[in-house]
Amino acid sequence: MSSQDARFEIAHLATAELLTPDLEGSLWFFTTLLGMRETGRSNGSVYLRCYEDPYSHSLKLTESDKPGIGGLRWRTTSEDALNRRAAALSKAGLGKGWTAGDLGVGKTFAFDTPDGHAMELVWDIEKHKATGAERSPILNRRSKRPLQGLPPKRLDHVNIMASNVREQRQILEQTLGFGTREQVVSGDDEFGAWMSVNILGHELAIMKDQTGAKARLHHLAFYFGIPQHNTDFAEICREYGIQIEAGPDVHGVTQGAFLYVLEPGGNRIELFGNAGILQLEPDWEPVVWDLEEFATGAGLAVGGTVMPQEFLLYGTPAVTGQEAMFRQQARDSNYDFRAIKVP
Amino acid sequence: MSSQDARFEIAHLATAELLTPDLEGSLWFFTTLLGMRETGRSNGSVYLRCYEDPYSHSLKLTESDKPGIGGLRWRTTSEDALNRRAAALSKAGLGKGWTAGDLGVGKTFAFDTPDGHAMELVWDIEKHKATGAERSPILNRRSKRPLQGLPPKRLDHVNIMASNVREQRQILEQTLGFGTREQVVSGDDEFGAWMSVNILGHELAIMKDQTGAKARLHHLAFYFGIPQHNTDFAEICREYGIQIEAGPDVHGVTQGAFLYVLEPGGNRIELFGNAGILQLEPDWEPVVWDLEEFATGAGLAVGGTVMPQEFLLYGTPAVTGQEAMFRQQARDSNYDFRAIKVP
Amino acid sequence: MSSQDARFEIAHLATAELLTPDLEGSLWFFTTLLGMRETGRSNGSVYLRCYEDPYSHSLKLTESDKPGIGGLRWRTTSEDALNRRAAALSKAGLGKGWTAGDLGVGKTFAFDTPDGHAMELVWDIEKHKATGAERSPILNRRSKRPLQGLPPKRLDHVNIMASNVREQRQILEQTLGFGTREQVVSGDDEFGAWMSVNILGHELAIMKDQTGAKARLHHLAFYFGIPQHNTDFAEICREYGIQIEAGPDVHGVTQGAFLYVLEPGGNRIELFGNAGILQLEPDWEPVVWDLEEFATGAGLAVGGTVMPQEFLLYGTPAVTGQEAMFRQQARDSNYDFRAIKVP
Amino acid sequence: MSSQDARFEIAHLATAELLTPDLEGSLWFFTTLLGMRETGRSNGSVYLRCYEDPYSHSLKLTESDKPGIGGLRWRTTSEDALNRRAAALSKAGLGKGWTAGDLGVGKTFAFDTPDGHAMELVWDIEKHKATGAERSPILNRRSKRPLQGLPPKRLDHVNIMASNVREQRQILEQTLGFGTREQVVSGDDEFGAWMSVNILGHELAIMKDQTGAKARLHHLAFYFGIPQHNTDFAEICREYGIQIEAGPDVHGVTQGAFLYVLEPGGNRIELFGNAGILQLEPDWEPVVWDLEEFATGAGLAVGGTVMPQEFLLYGTPAVTGQEAMFRQQARDSNYDFRAIKVP
Repeated sequence: MSSQDARFEIAHLATAELLTPDLEGSLWFFTTLLGMRETGRSNGSVYLRCYEDPYSHSLKLTESDKPGIGGLRWRTTSEDALNRRAAALSKAGLGKGWTAGDLGVGKTFAFDTPDGHAMELVWDIEKHKATGAERSPILNRRSKRPLQGLPPKRLDHVNIMASNVREQRQILEQTLGFGTREQVVSGDDEFGAWMSVNILGHELAIMKDQTGAKARLHHLAFYFGIPQHNTDFAEICREYGIQIEAGPDVHGVTQGAFLYVLEPGGNRIELFGNAGILQLEPDWEPVVWDLEEFATGAGLAVGGTVMPQEFLLYGTPAVTGQEAMFRQQARDSNYDFRAIKVP
Repeated sequence: MSSQDARFEIAHLATAELLTPDLEGSLWFFTTLLGMRETGRSNGSVYLRCYEDPYSHSLKLTESDKPGIGGLRWRTTSEDALNRRAAALSKAGLGKGWTAGDLGVGKTFAFDTPDGHAMELVWDIEKHKATGAERSPILNRRSKRPLQGLPPKRLDHVNIMASNVREQRQILEQTLGFGTREQVVSGDDEFGAWMSVNILGHELAIMKDQTGAKARLHHLAFYFGIPQHNTDFAEICREYGIQIEAGPDVHGVTQGAFLYVLEPGGNRIELFGNAGILQLEPDWEPVVWDLEEFATGAGLAVGGTVMPQEFLLYGTPAVTGQEAMFRQQARDSNYDFRAIKVP
Repeated sequence: MSSQDARFEIAHLATAELLTPDLEGSLWFFTTLLGMRETGRSNGSVYLRCYEDPYSHSLKLTESDKPGIGGLRWRTTSEDALNRRAAALSKAGLGKGWTAGDLGVGKTFAFDTPDGHAMELVWDIEKHKATGAERSPILNRRSKRPLQGLPPKRLDHVNIMASNVREQRQILEQTLGFGTREQVVSGDDEFGAWMSVNILGHELAIMKDQTGAKARLHHLAFYFGIPQHNTDFAEICREYGIQIEAGPDVHGVTQGAFLYVLEPGGNRIELFGNAGILQLEPDWEPVVWDLEEFATGAGLAVGGTVMPQEFLLYGTPAVTGQEAMFRQQARDSNYDFRAIKVP
Repeated sequence: MSSQDARFEIAHLATAELLTPDLEGSLWFFTTLLGMRETGRSNGSVYLRCYEDPYSHSLKLTESDKPGIGGLRWRTTSEDALNRRAAALSKAGLGKGWTAGDLGVGKTFAFDTPDGHAMELVWDIEKHKATGAERSPILNRRSKRPLQGLPPKRLDHVNIMASNVREQRQILEQTLGFGTREQVVSGDDEFGAWMSVNILGHELAIMKDQTGAKARLHHLAFYFGIPQHNTDFAEICREYGIQIEAGPDVHGVTQGAFLYVLEPGGNRIELFGNAGILQLEPDWEPVVWDLEEFATGAGLAVGGTVMPQEFLLYGTPAVTGQEAMFRQQARDSNYDFRAIKVP
């Protein structure tokens, strides 16, 4: 099955499951600082949504002994597309079969990427309908902007680490129709790929896991859509004990306005301050950055940010020796975040 | 041919032709104030592009006795899609046949909307390649950000007026696969429609022409993508004699950050300060605003802006009695813009 | 006593008392939407401060049958300056004598402006000292930025209405050393004056009360210092039922980024998105705007805002016939703001 | 003479002279990228002003074999104040006597700081009066915002390096009435001081010169007053070959939004994106940061910026071994900035 048949079959990233060894701390981060609303609990997981997320949740927080990505769920553009993609994944040997779904989510088709990241495809999913005081007079908005913290609008994208970027990229192009928008290469070696199924600069990025570990998360990103809010949220992180890794600044790659922080569970979270470049051209040819140019030129940062070494190495779960990169400031601070009451 | 077949066939709005009775004044506006670069001249038309526009031009300025929209050119997602859409338009009785193209543009298929707006479809189009000093170290950017004026990144969308919004909307859904994202209705009457062929909140809007005139332009929009720039450009317009009609503020419909000004030729130009809402859901159901709620609630403006009456009536070419709505401040001012010397 | 002796004697506007017929509603506005913190209650008044306000409170909310300004307290640059200004005010016939102060405020000297606005001068005032979790790692900040609503940094300025602007202006110049930065005149008539005792574009503005009423408040302003926050707060007001009167836009006069809303008690509140022009010149000559130029040119708004007629007429308490200008949307909405719990 | 007598005698920083070994390159930076306007030439110096600078110039560029600060000129609050401060400086042994002034500048009193920085006091100075097309309809603005590059509004502040910060600070407090707003100390050692003569968080900063050199410049700062513009200008610097040292980010000290770049002459220039904290309190007590807390906590950067080591060491003229810190990208780039033609 060629990638041409797969084009226009996936619509967008619908939900992500994040594993955390500190469920209470992670919940505090996402609800108290980022104003996400809890929409359900089940089997030790907590379901959350941003105020413009279309479905009942975009984030599922699950307690675990280590941080990491539990799973990513992509919505297809139709029910037929779901069945076609399930067949393609099975044929490629990645399919794991149909599941009964999740809270607000109907049956899904489960598969693993070559590197081992758990993913699902879904068509049947419950839309969020705000009622009463939660309804916004801005009718295209799924619920009112919360008054707590600094709320992002929606889940934006995910960046995963893989030991073999090329293999990972090609299989996702072929089976799911992802378009590759930008790449970082070093000689023959592929170091990174930014991919999307729509005009976004990326919904999925893959970065080389130089530690040799498998199926790790680089970061999960939420969308402010307002460049200033990255500066505002950096201030909040500084004041409330959340470790800021880098930013606010703007990547050359994707032109995304970034802020990277580590949530109390240890996962890297990006706040995305603008839409980045929107690639409207149907025949966009991948932009190729040389690794050196990427790292020291405009690729990683347009402004003066020098990315810390850990940015290219740290992922979750951390490999041996990386644990110290996450300083857990929030837990060490004398700020009793558990005493904060959220409306 | 159903609208389902038409889905995913059109990629985006590639170019627009604007008619102007004051070519010199319009050029001054687009190049001196908005920093667009001239990329060619032919038969009395001037071709311009923004620094992230993908092709050789996004705007063609053509001298004419009256302002208005000369034509809109949509790029398809493939060459086959072009042929299929040409057939569908012909079957619907709208097709006018193939053309030899334009500067940097290969053959196109021409058609008229039911209201009479001239449009074309194109696949074969020349991509802009910056060389030398025009190349940006931000590799996904087609050329460096200019240092003149306050430059938008690219052409964003168009809003046309039609005497019968429903008819116009339905034929574009059916023949070109446009999705309708939002609507304004008054009882049985359709007052407006915001449509797109991708995840943008709109690339094409249709507003009811209450004057009964045909084939008029409401506005053409360019994308800053930075909310602050709408405020900055309002200041520039105030200082350099360009009539500001409304904004900066944010529409509830599409959540677009707007600034409406009248360029020296009399056409209404919108500067778009953010990406607006991005509609990722493949089964987005059109949001329906009641006309009253739209006009007095959050629909037209989230902030305190009271849109002037002319906003819903004025289009180009102006109908009898509307000419005075365009005050031509730039030309009446004692500011001799032709004498501007830049250091 | 000449105004030269009075120069450098007043430091800044320290506190303001606002009267409200809806104490609960006003409190909801200032704490839930603007994130101000309650620092005390006494005799039916509630004391509030913004997170960078230097003293124990900047705002005192007092229940009253009508809205309006209860009093304004200016801090002097020294204790000696306080005594000299008290003497000057007494000599001018405005002094009312010393008071025992207020919560966190030592003795003050009370006086009335010629129009009847109650004011006080103070030197001895308690500084706010944050402890524990309220302390900010940004050491020049008096307390952490709250996580509730969209918090302004501090009280910024006040705009009062007076039947005789010239008289009011001159006596404040002479007795307190205010410098007049900008004026609006219509022939011989003074329509407005923007005054300060430091480099701010204004800390005190006086606008002509065309209704002939006395001692009214035009608006009280709080400082975001971030232009984007005015747009953000407009959105919050739209969603939570607060009447937006005008903005976000930028005044030509003072170059202040404005948003005017009516709080549930009926008082007009301005949110100030930037510092405005800072007048560093020691011999700044007042800028004089003609009323016509002010109202229709860049004076009132640099962008496209057309100020509503009520902007120049409505003040608190409202005069007969003006009550309807305050639509009390918050109270009429089906949003039960009293059920909101603030952390 | 005590510092109490000196209070309120200095108004603000009026002009700065910058030395440059690459006059053409520096001019290109200040006029083409920052849109400053040339207002005069004399004896090999070029005079420039920002569009809201009050006087005929705020910056004097002078060709020299090495970069550095040529002189700083402070305006007093009155002519009497000038004479009193001249006497105080003479008494303190710093005075060098009266000068005949400069272009648009009347007689001045010259003095050196203990570290050897050349300074002057002035009262008599010509105000800039825009005429014709340069006049702004925003009447408090001294000239229209230019359409070239991204123009700052005015000169903001200066940061000088001194081998003995305490001595430098105390003499400026005593003779000129500077108030010290914030300090960085390490044990008994003073590492930095931020001082002002008005409510600005600083107009003069002194940082310890750890190289033992004398009379060096750390940076000169210009005021955008719009936080977004720091990001915009970083992009321009990246595209046009100007070396970005750090930012955009926000300092905890002064809360200033910073961007540090090296202009083609090698001098460090800061763009200031907001007003920073305004210290309205007349009895503000200096905030004291411990060096460690300053460097690794919120002091240097609220966001994730890790300041490069050179930030605390590099100044102009560079000491032996520091020359390489200035990479002169603009000159090494293949971008022929001298050939830029503006439409």
